[in-house]
Amino acid sequence: MKLEEKVKKSIEKYKMLNKDEKILVSVSGGKDSHTAAWILKKLDYNIELFHINLGISKFSEISLKKVKELAEILNVPLNIVNLKDITGKTIEDLRKKHCSICGITKRYLMNRFGYENGFDVIVTGHNLDDEVSFLLNNLLNWSIRYLPKHLPVLPSHDKFLKKVKIFYEIEEEEILEYAEKEGIPFTTAKCKFQKDAITVEHRKYLNKLKEYNKNIKKQFLYGYLKYRHIFELEEDFQFKECKICGMTSAGNICSFCRVWKIKEFKW
Amino acid sequence: MKLEEKVKKSIEKYKMLNKDEKILVSVSGGKDSHTAAWILKKLDYNIELFHINLGISKFSEISLKKVKELAEILNVPLNIVNLKDITGKTIEDLRKKHCSICGITKRYLMNRFGYENGFDVIVTGHNLDDEVSFLLNNLLNWSIRYLPKHLPVLPSHDKFLKKVKIFYEIEEEEILEYAEKEGIPFTTAKCKFQKDAITVEHRKYLNKLKEYNKNIKKQFLYGYLKYRHIFELEEDFQFKECKICGMTSAGNICSFCRVWKIKEFKW
Repeated sequence: MKLEEKVKKSIEKYKMLNKDEKILVSVSGGKDSHTAAWILKKLDYNIELFHINLGISKFSEISLKKVKELAEILNVPLNIVNLKDITGKTIEDLRKKHCSICGITKRYLMNRFGYENGFDVIVTGHNLDDEVSFLLNNLLNWSIRYLPKHLPVLPSHDKFLKKVKIFYEIEEEEILEYAEKEGIPFTTAKCKFQKDAITVEHRKYLNKLKEYNKNIKKQFLYGYLKYRHIFELEEDFQFKECKICGMTSAGNICSFCRVWKIKEFKW
Repeated sequence: MKLEEKVKKSIEKYKMLNKDEKILVSVSGGKDSHTAAWILKKLDYNIELFHINLGISKFSEISLKKVKELAEILNVPLNIVNLKDITGKTIEDLRKKHCSICGITKRYLMNRFGYENGFDVIVTGHNLDDEVSFLLNNLLNWSIRYLPKHLPVLPSHDKFLKKVKIFYEIEEEEILEYAEKEGIPFTTAKCKFQKDAITVEHRKYLNKLKEYNKNIKKQFLYGYLKYRHIFELEEDFQFKECKICGMTSAGNICSFCRVWKIKEFKW
């Protein structure tokens, strides 16, 4: 089956998207998010692109270039925000925890931008390999709060927009093959901080296990979906409003505001 | 802290053993089970040894030799059973599933031998590395029936004897170091079927993760103990008596009898 057909099936199976929704596709410059935008455009969904310039030298420049190429080919609006304009700093300026702060920052900015600009849903390029490696990481750490959340669709909640992973069931290598065949512009540049991430080991390991069982990633993910409910322990959990920015938050102050301590937020 | 002290602490913490219990230590010829017997003897527990000759050429011969040396040094009774005398076959005679059938067979024979000969408890040499790699395997497969059972002590139930892992909290390398320093006889011969086992990959991976977090194995295991209860789904599960051998079983016929189809069991 062609990749577009598989994505179409996932969209139906998990009720991911509707044609009348205003969709913001978060694009990084890499193959996954670019292919997500490419396929959604092909399938005639109403999309705009969103890109954050993280200010990581060389990597962010080449990423931005590819994002602009993509937007031009697809002929869709491209929304760019500069991290330095908002926080006064780039990811490179941080002294530690680059990956976790980058994750917090991207999730916050894409959601806030989408919320403030009338989008219904955010689509990201996360694929099967991403999902199982995050899941494995959360199991190894028994991060019980995050364990129920490895879903293809996270519904909207207050000021959190709906989040959709159209490649939830698709392996990375299939996306790469498709992107190359279609001539989608993307960069293979790796962020220089990525090499330190333990998730690289999870990916290597899961790829190694494929030699024993070629369906192991999907089986692991579908088994998880079957038993996911056992991780839902915090039944009386209530979201709050961040006291600084007013966005939806798990705590009194959201992670973004805790990290960046910005007095006045301006795009 | 010395290994014996750590084991003593584990025995107290998990209420593993009493001095008046008759203990059967299952010994394979390898460092872990031999060290378990060695330390229990040092700590003045009432032990006998139990060994199964699996009939795997070279490996079983050298294992048996080392087991006999150990029994002589410790001056404790050694009980040996030959798989071929009981089943008419060796593990080598099997055409497939060597590792899983070997596991079923060893668990059954040590339990039945202990039960029929008045022992109170069976001690095995399983260590922290074994436990976390089995746990990881069961998580990857979502083997929900086995997921609640990664415990240091499995209580007795009908004809199932109590099972104890005195090295539940001890890493493999620490046992090896101790065994070498103490001059405990053991073989480093590996069973020829082991190379095919996927658990070898789990071990390599978990050892690799230690480079990121040296306590990762213990944290994974203690996190598991904290949340273990969420895997207990089969609340109305009832053990049965195997219709062939009469031993305690999960199904109508136990796995041992299903595999070996023996008409009349004789030690």
